[in-house]
Amino acid sequence: MIEDKNKQYTKLNDLGEFGLIEHLTKHFKIKRESTIKGVGDDAAVLDFKEKKVVVTTDLLVEGVHFDLSYMPLKHLGYKAVMVNLSDVYAMNAKATQITVSIAVSNRFPLEALEELYAGIQTAVEIYDVDLIGGDTTSSTTGLLISVTAIGEVAEGEVVYRNGAKPNDLLVVSGDLGGAYMGLQVLEREKEVYKVNPNNQPDLEPYTYIVERQLKPEARKDIVKLLSDLDVKPTAMIDISDGLSSEIMHICKQSDVGCDLYENKIPLDPQVISTCEEFNMDSTTVALNGGEDYELLFTVSQDDFPKIKANPNLSVIGFIKEKAAGTHLVTRAETRIPLKAQGWKNFED
Amino acid sequence: MIEDKNKQYTKLNDLGEFGLIEHLTKHFKIKRESTIKGVGDDAAVLDFKEKKVVVTTDLLVEGVHFDLSYMPLKHLGYKAVMVNLSDVYAMNAKATQITVSIAVSNRFPLEALEELYAGIQTAVEIYDVDLIGGDTTSSTTGLLISVTAIGEVAEGEVVYRNGAKPNDLLVVSGDLGGAYMGLQVLEREKEVYKVNPNNQPDLEPYTYIVERQLKPEARKDIVKLLSDLDVKPTAMIDISDGLSSEIMHICKQSDVGCDLYENKIPLDPQVISTCEEFNMDSTTVALNGGEDYELLFTVSQDDFPKIKANPNLSVIGFIKEKAAGTHLVTRAETRIPLKAQGWKNFED
Repeated sequence: MIEDKNKQYTKLNDLGEFGLIEHLTKHFKIKRESTIKGVGDDAAVLDFKEKKVVVTTDLLVEGVHFDLSYMPLKHLGYKAVMVNLSDVYAMNAKATQITVSIAVSNRFPLEALEELYAGIQTAVEIYDVDLIGGDTTSSTTGLLISVTAIGEVAEGEVVYRNGAKPNDLLVVSGDLGGAYMGLQVLEREKEVYKVNPNNQPDLEPYTYIVERQLKPEARKDIVKLLSDLDVKPTAMIDISDGLSSEIMHICKQSDVGCDLYENKIPLDPQVISTCEEFNMDSTTVALNGGEDYELLFTVSQDDFPKIKANPNLSVIGFIKEKAAGTHLVTRAETRIPLKAQGWKNFED
Repeated sequence: MIEDKNKQYTKLNDLGEFGLIEHLTKHFKIKRESTIKGVGDDAAVLDFKEKKVVVTTDLLVEGVHFDLSYMPLKHLGYKAVMVNLSDVYAMNAKATQITVSIAVSNRFPLEALEELYAGIQTAVEIYDVDLIGGDTTSSTTGLLISVTAIGEVAEGEVVYRNGAKPNDLLVVSGDLGGAYMGLQVLEREKEVYKVNPNNQPDLEPYTYIVERQLKPEARKDIVKLLSDLDVKPTAMIDISDGLSSEIMHICKQSDVGCDLYENKIPLDPQVISTCEEFNMDSTTVALNGGEDYELLFTVSQDDFPKIKANPNLSVIGFIKEKAAGTHLVTRAETRIPLKAQGWKNFED
């Protein structure tokens, strides 16, 4: 692509707050019946009738959750929405509305925010949700995005984390570890670029895993699939922090134990080959990598016939009594206690 | 106050994300009937039955919206909630739930966040709302707070900005300009402190206006008062950016004009005396100061008998046809076009 070096950028302070919000949101259309009033008043007004409402919120911070040296702003806008919708789907709910607030420093021109909002708009259109509000302000340093997602679900259809029962099957959608290995590749290429800015990275062998990192999809389709299959999970959670941590959340909140089978963990061939290249253990990557935004859930064994042949779903273990603990059963058939590597954002 | 210099502070990275959220929110109780599930799952679950739902969100950024050199963290937590509840009340709705997300740098110990959450908890208890979720993450620099507030309102009770009609009365709650003049005093004392840190500021003559800046209250009581008086405003907005800007929002969205009477603008004596001391014009301060979080609304003239004697409410003008424009009628009976000073966050 040939860049126009003379392109004029618009400074954010050339627009006021109202001008900026209006400019960024004017192409967003309201489509949901439950949205009575979107952007433009003190608050949005919604009507869910007899439905229950789910609400979730996440912050994405530059330098902590994303690195703009390899994350295009359009992808970032898309991902910020996905991260939140994923939590709505993990309640077995339908995502209906989002609010998006951003704090941004003066180093970003208007055109950068337009890119960000183009990604948000793409997400909103594909996932059929309405943008109903938000706030735009300056920050002293980088970019921060705060999204709140709202969804609706019929009474009795909500799935919490705390309903898993002994003998239930542990099931995961898609495959794991891709987003984390994509990040490893991007970080490596960034280092190469620092040494030699003329070097063109060849990301072709890593297309799938890089996309898993830069443009994840929330599993709206899985919620629909489960409904079509007439399967109501007993517990569900989305995988943002790695399989191990999420399994432990379900087990702790459901007061149960679990056996997870190493040889059942779904891995894409590109994850396996990239792990070999980086000399990393693919099971460890799947257990602790995070950011896959797949759904992890438990179902009664009675539902096994309905899900067993489905290529989108993998049965990876069994729920046990609490006293049995939470274990990984390795390929060598040894049992290792699972542990959540937890969260390292506050590391020095 | 004698400070214990040997006090041990807890570093944030000594707790994980889950430990931190659990620690900060464990004293919050769920009280609202509409809250089915609060903190602790992928999303909160709410049930508003036949009610409409209002949603609003605001970001507060250190160095832009607050200065921790004179804003105590407990007050900041309280104010972050007020700023959002004010928007809910401006829809004539009842505030029911909030989410609070924070991004915070490592320079803050756990004890600082406990102070912040103590202020949030005070607000939540006084205003009878539930804390139902949020996110906690690190930031590369300062502190940022993102609050989303949710409220409920019966069908037909919602008040938008766009319903003002010619001949309606323009009414404001409380008094104006206090928060802005409080900020001037605090900024002056900060400069004095920089020159001589041993100087003890005497804030006693400024108690009211400093409190208006540091600990504003959202006008939940006015929504109840209007309901008790059986007055439904034709349009309503909260005053966050200054009277002038908010009047222009109502007029623009209602497609009407307005005469605002300078001599009717409610000012506290402390605002007047401090304006004299700072050699500032009190009308300009009331028009453009902002952060008062009073409610500005329009009512039909038929409702005048119900509100005229109320000490909480001041009739400050009349709605006119759009062609008449929006004007300030000065004490000297000259008519000056109103203008919104707008928003200066993105200034260099």
